[in-house]
Amino acid sequence: MSRWEPDARERLERAAVELFVEQGFAETTVPQIAERAGLTTRTYFRHFADKREALFGSEDELAPMIAGLMADAPASLSPFDAIAQALNTVASRLQPQYEFMVVRHRVVQADDGLRERELRKRAALAAEITKGFQVRGEDDLTSLVAASLATGIMGLSIERWLNGSGSESLPDLVRHALTAARGLLS
Amino acid sequence: MSRWEPDARERLERAAVELFVEQGFAETTVPQIAERAGLTTRTYFRHFADKREALFGSEDELAPMIAGLMADAPASLSPFDAIAQALNTVASRLQPQYEFMVVRHRVVQADDGLRERELRKRAALAAEITKGFQVRGEDDLTSLVAASLATGIMGLSIERWLNGSGSESLPDLVRHALTAARGLLS
Repeated sequence: MSRWEPDARERLERAAVELFVEQGFAETTVPQIAERAGLTTRTYFRHFADKREALFGSEDELAPMIAGLMADAPASLSPFDAIAQALNTVASRLQPQYEFMVVRHRVVQADDGLRERELRKRAALAAEITKGFQVRGEDDLTSLVAASLATGIMGLSIERWLNGSGSESLPDLVRHALTAARGLLS
Repeated sequence: MSRWEPDARERLERAAVELFVEQGFAETTVPQIAERAGLTTRTYFRHFADKREALFGSEDELAPMIAGLMADAPASLSPFDAIAQALNTVASRLQPQYEFMVVRHRVVQADDGLRERELRKRAALAAEITKGFQVRGEDDLTSLVAASLATGIMGLSIERWLNGSGSESLPDLVRHALTAARGLLS
């Protein structure tokens, strides 16, 4: 087995979700996940701190991505439009992972500890996005409020996407939620 | 000891927070809390399901209060103004509890399990507020987005209130955050 596994992280995530669905989260061990992915336990722990983290790999990547998108958005955009642009990019990135995300969501929702960790991750995400707005030169309060709006819109759109029939794409759902938010604020 | 203790709930909450600060959350037992409050363990469990819940009594009261405020707000108010009015009422209700809330916040932040439970409570709060907007006749998406905005604004304002010097009142902080939210569009 090569020390370099460019797609190791994704293979481990998929193996973990498969096993959690087949035999339950509590009953699954890290060695089983590694074996299913054709990798070693050691490789697993190079990518994830513990068994739960395999479920949160994509969310961990979201935080720096969104923060970067905020910081890089043209200064001429209003904070709201910067949010809209960043969320659209993230939504397009997530859209192809629909089936994986549905199953992952089911696993997370079925376990109290996992649901709580998901909520904590979202709080950490809001902190990252706040920093992104501060880098754009927004004052602290505007940055906090903008980050709260962005994570709120993203969170509820993902929820609708994963609980729906899949007929509406995530970018569309995000766009509709942003339109509703605009309506509320104006 | 009387079976009827009109302020039993509040006494138990204060006793719990005192003991958590003095000797730590893990080291405190329900019988100790009840004793400090001058009540029985049985009375404790009439009010709270477990040791953690003593910290979340006020949040549990917020959900039906805000949902009721939304549902009762004059139909002529825009959703945003209904949010502003409800949050102002809640903020004024919380303001006199500042010292208690600061200590409670410190206890919650120091414990992973408690922080996670707090985040879950806020998610449940958003669901209640969504219902409040639906009762007002808003469509489902607008209700979801409005609830997300309301809980976001309230959450970040409480955070600033409790982490600040106490010189700014919660109603003022909420008002400023609402103004910042409106300003995101420009």
